[in-house]
Amino acid sequence: MAPITKHFDCLVIGGGSGGIAFCRRAAQRGAKVALVNRGGYGTCVNVGCVPKKLMWYTAEMAEKIREALGYGFRVNKMGNFDWNAFKSKRDAYISRLNGIYEKNLRSDKVEIVKGTATFVSAKEVEVDLEDGTDKQYLSADHVVIAVGTVCVLLEVVNQAGGYPTLPKDIPGAEYGIDSDGFFDLKHQPRRVALVGAGYIAVEFAGVFNSLESETHLFIRKDNFLRTFDPMLSESLQQVYRENGIHIHTRAKAFEKVEKTEAGLTIHYEDGNGKGTIQVDCLVWAIGRTSFTKPLKLHKTGVQVDEQGNIKVDDFQNTNVNGIYALGDVAGKALLTPVAIAAGRKLGDRLFGGELFSTSKLEYENIPSVVFSHPEIGSIGLTEPEARDKYGAENIKIYTSTFTAMYYSMLEHKQPTKYKLVCAEKDEKIVGLHIFGMGSAEILQGFGVAVKMGATKADFDKCVAIHPTSAEELVTMK
Amino acid sequence: MAPITKHFDCLVIGGGSGGIAFCRRAAQRGAKVALVNRGGYGTCVNVGCVPKKLMWYTAEMAEKIREALGYGFRVNKMGNFDWNAFKSKRDAYISRLNGIYEKNLRSDKVEIVKGTATFVSAKEVEVDLEDGTDKQYLSADHVVIAVGTVCVLLEVVNQAGGYPTLPKDIPGAEYGIDSDGFFDLKHQPRRVALVGAGYIAVEFAGVFNSLESETHLFIRKDNFLRTFDPMLSESLQQVYRENGIHIHTRAKAFEKVEKTEAGLTIHYEDGNGKGTIQVDCLVWAIGRTSFTKPLKLHKTGVQVDEQGNIKVDDFQNTNVNGIYALGDVAGKALLTPVAIAAGRKLGDRLFGGELFSTSKLEYENIPSVVFSHPEIGSIGLTEPEARDKYGAENIKIYTSTFTAMYYSMLEHKQPTKYKLVCAEKDEKIVGLHIFGMGSAEILQGFGVAVKMGATKADFDKCVAIHPTSAEELVTMK
Repeated sequence: MAPITKHFDCLVIGGGSGGIAFCRRAAQRGAKVALVNRGGYGTCVNVGCVPKKLMWYTAEMAEKIREALGYGFRVNKMGNFDWNAFKSKRDAYISRLNGIYEKNLRSDKVEIVKGTATFVSAKEVEVDLEDGTDKQYLSADHVVIAVGTVCVLLEVVNQAGGYPTLPKDIPGAEYGIDSDGFFDLKHQPRRVALVGAGYIAVEFAGVFNSLESETHLFIRKDNFLRTFDPMLSESLQQVYRENGIHIHTRAKAFEKVEKTEAGLTIHYEDGNGKGTIQVDCLVWAIGRTSFTKPLKLHKTGVQVDEQGNIKVDDFQNTNVNGIYALGDVAGKALLTPVAIAAGRKLGDRLFGGELFSTSKLEYENIPSVVFSHPEIGSIGLTEPEARDKYGAENIKIYTSTFTAMYYSMLEHKQPTKYKLVCAEKDEKIVGLHIFGMGSAEILQGFGVAVKMGATKADFDKCVAIHPTSAEELVTMK
Repeated sequence: MAPITKHFDCLVIGGGSGGIAFCRRAAQRGAKVALVNRGGYGTCVNVGCVPKKLMWYTAEMAEKIREALGYGFRVNKMGNFDWNAFKSKRDAYISRLNGIYEKNLRSDKVEIVKGTATFVSAKEVEVDLEDGTDKQYLSADHVVIAVGTVCVLLEVVNQAGGYPTLPKDIPGAEYGIDSDGFFDLKHQPRRVALVGAGYIAVEFAGVFNSLESETHLFIRKDNFLRTFDPMLSESLQQVYRENGIHIHTRAKAFEKVEKTEAGLTIHYEDGNGKGTIQVDCLVWAIGRTSFTKPLKLHKTGVQVDEQGNIKVDDFQNTNVNGIYALGDVAGKALLTPVAIAAGRKLGDRLFGGELFSTSKLEYENIPSVVFSHPEIGSIGLTEPEARDKYGAENIKIYTSTFTAMYYSMLEHKQPTKYKLVCAEKDEKIVGLHIFGMGSAEILQGFGVAVKMGATKADFDKCVAIHPTSAEELVTMK
């Protein structure tokens, strides 16, 4: 019997944050929507933001316990952090969240097809069903690609390109895990090496160190988080060192990784020369890359850029009429809320009628944070970017460095550092960079203000909230 | 020998947050300034914001220790919170802060006269020096009154007026302490009764309860914090009850308070009828009142309102030319940053030349928070106020109730509740009310946005920061 192709208004490939947001919005606007998804619902909830934040909370808790004495509490730690028990609880929570996502999709009447989609033509896919039953064929007027990214590791690294340090050329590289593997760890490694200078490596390093694992971080240049304002990356790197993280700068590709009874032996070379370390766990956190390989995109004519990301315009249109891409696979501002917002906007535009015919997400001044220890937060231009754009003589920088009141009672004080980058005569805020306890929550409201076009005078006009850290942002001189 | 009167450009009575801010700004602008102050530098640092926030941190720490198990840490508490040791550390910190304030004043060349000022005429004061030496006489072209408030208790309650429950009429009322006394406590009372429905009573109750004191809170009506949006006061009251605080609503004046060997016996009557409780400490937190009594204001002709606050216009002018009042004594928005901002503005206006000749503080949309457990934060109009002002048909309310991710791993979940009050067609944000972990830090940036005139659309335009609580404020439906 010839396969029957089921037709929809819209077909979505990939049920992560962006795909789900689009599906629900489109369905709520009356479209007949099918979603092809395999495994859990996306990176964010399964191997990204959610478990990461929960691990960040464990690290925060470990710090609080250490700081308890300074606050008048004598506490005894009975044994180490129970990684395995916590992981079980974390996994159960994530499983519940996946269930809620699925329920929401079903209540919006989105047809969920569990499997892997491959294009057979521009508007038709073949789905290899997860349960091993027959294949399914789906077609649609509109096709949205929202397959996200996967960790750059051995098998996909060629596709990603641009990584001079390729683990695949290192003997023993395969003993390492990627960030998905981090979330699979059943026990806390007592000694860990992380490779990477992006936020994933930095966040994991913060967690391991706070949980008292011996932590080594290998980065290729002098600083990590180099896309952030130098104040942020330098301050964090200094605090990380002070807190005992071994940061190996100017690290070359490892000579080799050996598996022994005692763990893994890493033969490395960094700015200080050659060395070896013993660790229990090696984490490659060298990036993520768009996950388009299984799609057979060539059947559609959709173009990708040299990093493998699908090229889209401001409206999430690919070069092929009726095919769209959103979320991480489009390679721009790889953040869950960006994918969600872009998905909703696209849903509005395609199925919301005339009123929403020009609906699109604005990619300027998107606030973002890193859940390091302490957190950092950032909106807009870094100081060097602002200098390039406006000229050094047309920007004004305000900075504030202080000790948050929480640390006044503690021996070990953590700095807080804020920076405002203002441009032109009216001192419009074109960059806001914050480092210190609470930065993630502090940033959102300032994000609204900056997006509204706030000037330094607008910041100063708001009365401070005392005693907080955030008040320093409205009282800078 | 006839006393010599020293003349200044400006004389400031009261060295709290507002007085200091004015002194420094005026001095920096070239004025010859004298400050008369007695004791420490104001309420905020000595018996207000600063020690209060530090006590709030101890309560937070106590909660974290209880929550540690949920985060995979087995900890044993060795004994109770060491109130006395912590108090010593807190006092030392406050003493350092007072020293810094004094140093800053001196480096700005403000002449500090330590003592109590009494007016002899509109522009001249006699100062009873703290060190017991001779009196001093000071005069000035401009006189700023910034003496702040004192706790409403036995001796001043008549001056304050307006309090139907007067402790002075209660036998044994004098066994209670006020909020200054709270900061003097050398040991943690195991059982405590607080009287008052304002933020001081509510904050202290939260601290005591978190630190595991048996906590009774007596309020005259059904709800505390009645000037806040009902969502905030009701939510907090519910959580307080769930967390074990005994809230005695519709409480009448105590019949009597007896001192026994076991502590204090309070004979009360609340909405449930008559009863007695044994406590170790009774705290009257029934308000603060302007502290103008020692000034002999009648010598100046400066008018006060029926609450005893000095009447000022938008520019902090009293009815007497050349005499100004700012900070709590002016009875409007009794907040440290308000006093500071008003002080700076006045300094600018008096001594900043033409450019600042109309400088004044705007009292609209001042954000404020209560360091309860959890915190609440508020800007602008409550829902009932907005309904009155705009008409029910012209306001739109957005609410969000959720469990912050932190609590996903804990048995005991604390709710977070947010409310936006929007007015007219453009849905301008005229009220923002938040309840939940981190609210104090979250509020500041939204304060800037609301002050700028943000609409709901402006909020929605900012991409969310995930995972945070604050992001819920930009994704409300």
